[in-house]
Amino acid sequence: MARTLIKDVLTTPPTGQEITIGGWVRTVRNSKGGFSFLALNDGSTIAQLQVVADGKLPNYAAELVKLTAGCAVLATGTLVQSQGKGQTVELQATAVQVLGWADPEAYPIQPKKHTFEFLRTQAHLRARTNTFAAVTRIRNVVSMAIHDFFQQRGFIYVHTPIITASDCEGAGQMFRVTTLEANPPAGAPRPDPNDDFFGRPTYLTVSGQLEGETYACAMGNIYTFGPTFRAENSNTPRHLAEFWMVEPEMAFCDLEGDAETAEAFLKHIFRTALERCTKDLEFLSEHVDATVLPTLTAIVASDFERVTYTEAVALLEKSGRTWQYPVGWGTDLQTEHERYLTEEVFRKPVVVTHYPAAIKSFYMRLDDGTAPGRATVAAMDVLVPKIGELIGGSQREERLDVLLQRMAELKLRPEDYWWYLDLRRYGSVPHAGFGLGLERTLQFITGMANIRDVIPYPRAPRSAEF
Amino acid sequence: MARTLIKDVLTTPPTGQEITIGGWVRTVRNSKGGFSFLALNDGSTIAQLQVVADGKLPNYAAELVKLTAGCAVLATGTLVQSQGKGQTVELQATAVQVLGWADPEAYPIQPKKHTFEFLRTQAHLRARTNTFAAVTRIRNVVSMAIHDFFQQRGFIYVHTPIITASDCEGAGQMFRVTTLEANPPAGAPRPDPNDDFFGRPTYLTVSGQLEGETYACAMGNIYTFGPTFRAENSNTPRHLAEFWMVEPEMAFCDLEGDAETAEAFLKHIFRTALERCTKDLEFLSEHVDATVLPTLTAIVASDFERVTYTEAVALLEKSGRTWQYPVGWGTDLQTEHERYLTEEVFRKPVVVTHYPAAIKSFYMRLDDGTAPGRATVAAMDVLVPKIGELIGGSQREERLDVLLQRMAELKLRPEDYWWYLDLRRYGSVPHAGFGLGLERTLQFITGMANIRDVIPYPRAPRSAEF
Repeated sequence: MARTLIKDVLTTPPTGQEITIGGWVRTVRNSKGGFSFLALNDGSTIAQLQVVADGKLPNYAAELVKLTAGCAVLATGTLVQSQGKGQTVELQATAVQVLGWADPEAYPIQPKKHTFEFLRTQAHLRARTNTFAAVTRIRNVVSMAIHDFFQQRGFIYVHTPIITASDCEGAGQMFRVTTLEANPPAGAPRPDPNDDFFGRPTYLTVSGQLEGETYACAMGNIYTFGPTFRAENSNTPRHLAEFWMVEPEMAFCDLEGDAETAEAFLKHIFRTALERCTKDLEFLSEHVDATVLPTLTAIVASDFERVTYTEAVALLEKSGRTWQYPVGWGTDLQTEHERYLTEEVFRKPVVVTHYPAAIKSFYMRLDDGTAPGRATVAAMDVLVPKIGELIGGSQREERLDVLLQRMAELKLRPEDYWWYLDLRRYGSVPHAGFGLGLERTLQFITGMANIRDVIPYPRAPRSAEF
Repeated sequence: MARTLIKDVLTTPPTGQEITIGGWVRTVRNSKGGFSFLALNDGSTIAQLQVVADGKLPNYAAELVKLTAGCAVLATGTLVQSQGKGQTVELQATAVQVLGWADPEAYPIQPKKHTFEFLRTQAHLRARTNTFAAVTRIRNVVSMAIHDFFQQRGFIYVHTPIITASDCEGAGQMFRVTTLEANPPAGAPRPDPNDDFFGRPTYLTVSGQLEGETYACAMGNIYTFGPTFRAENSNTPRHLAEFWMVEPEMAFCDLEGDAETAEAFLKHIFRTALERCTKDLEFLSEHVDATVLPTLTAIVASDFERVTYTEAVALLEKSGRTWQYPVGWGTDLQTEHERYLTEEVFRKPVVVTHYPAAIKSFYMRLDDGTAPGRATVAAMDVLVPKIGELIGGSQREERLDVLLQRMAELKLRPEDYWWYLDLRRYGSVPHAGFGLGLERTLQFITGMANIRDVIPYPRAPRSAEF
């Protein structure tokens, strides 16, 4: 079934040759003059191709006049200059084959405005709407921009494990993976963890970073790009139980190199989206969030600001604002603080560095020479308008003695981290990395208010349909 | 810490400018003349760069003469023509900074031959060996070749869900995902599945196909590339509990288009590996499997054979062979049969089509006009030497009535598949797709005998370390 994509039809001058288009009818207009205009969409572009079906086509009266939104057709014909508004070409059909009907009484995606809430209940069909098809194409382009950025710089794509026996960072927010009877009858003997598939308790990963470090300490620069999980009971427009994360890790790299890479990375993603998803972003700017295009354009042209956590806290304290969460040296920055810094103080993305050790993870490198009680680590968060933190990263603690000391303070058992500690025992190198959540990034790029609308099948508390 | 990658050093003519290399020592030779040769590897290429450290360097006696395999260094200097065998340039060092030591008494990766079994226990360090670093680079190139193939053809990359509430195809081979107490004490009240995170039983996906179909029926051509899971108690060199799978799905496509895409896809992957991983494949040909290069080269140049299942069974029956698994119309083909067809009958890849309906999945399209009791479906398997089936696919059943009839025969409940059936209710189109396991493909390309050696952290029964 050779067919031409509508996006190619619309970007290539017509040759006069006969072509075949496959697509789904968006709208139909039956002219009194005895012919019909079908607006076809095939998912390759947000634009429709108009097909003119002449009343002389053999199946015109029996089938074509009965076409409605959602029907699937194959249309063959030649492209001609269009007389209609808003299009340059149209297909003068010599044959229109109806492949699948869509009963207008039952088909949920009628040509009218649907709420995003309703469309979430129809997630298997919502990519047939302009908004969700645009988000799907942008998600594809952004995913490839992520790969391109790292591949062009010689990073190696590494698949870190999804099922993990280490519950290192999860602390009660991990999903258990098991083949044991998950719902044994009352009074049944207690299941033996040793009988489980892996012979031990296992979980869904919350991050590929620790395994990523092992590969950076062999291959140099690597990145992961895969699903991660949080069993966090957060029913918000910003949280998913399953989401995709990008985690680069660079050997022979310090915090400064980490921040430079993060800035270049974000600009590359946004620039690629602007260049390759122009029509989809224009559509979303018009229908979803008018700030999308100017925000992305401004960020690509900006130089990210750098401030230390200590400087940031001083700015917040002297702001004169009343905060929902009080701010002071030692407290973590909340979204309200982050947005104030990036939206109002600097009016561009901000890289905040050197956070207090007490509020950051055990593996972040302890800064030299900080005062007692004011210990900081070589951590960084990249803040952007509307979202707050989009990237979190750090230089890693490469000194075995310092790392062991820090783990002891946090009551982490070295034997649970034997392989992670080996990296500091054998050929240890300064290294750094960061994490970017794909869906938060897509929310930022598309302007979609609810994170469940930028992933095909969202997973959230009490929600795993499809 | 700006550094130059060794792969760039070796492919660019020396400029005389000072450069810095970061890497791990593979071997050391201390010359009696008062200088040392360090063979450095940084993961960017299989080749080592020789660094010449002069005895006049300030840390020569205190540090550099003590370097051993596995130590990490930063070496600065200029490239000069090398006098040594097997290398064109070497780095004349003006400074060598030792970043991390590796006690030769304790470091597990000594410069000698290690068994793959031993290295599996050191999976966090095994990418520091030539073989596993080569496999890692090939895995990266193959992963990107997969993306490139589909992106060049306008396919949209779609992330189908990992956690799923449908146990459609799993039939007892799925991992359960839960936040319920997985190991309740004896006598504890039976946990209520309604209290689980998603309010219902959930599992790890075995395939993204069904959700992929929903996106193909909106976007046209899509593909997935993500982790999939089997809780199958198979402790073999061919099975993993967690592996990465590629699943394209094409709307307006029949079995013939499916087979053509699969053939072009495999050739693209193999051609890309040959072009971009030449040195790594040469190394593996020399040290792991001598047939790797000729096999890949032959396949890229071949035209895949096409036979029907019925023809294939006739060939097997008249072979005169004694089979471990008896063959006859209606039985599934085993690896011994598949290998005979591709290795001995046709001596090239074979696409076997139109299998008996009774041995294939419910969603495969029923062939028209097959005799009663001999019903076949529009399925295909692509067979390659040494492995047997590498790709399995089909045209999907797009006719609602035929699909419902088939589901009734298999006692599948339509209400469990309401959204899948909707695709046949509204704008149904002929569509087709296939699945390729990344790790099987990598086994084929690299010649690695055990599938656990082509994924960073293999997951298998009783094995989830790291």
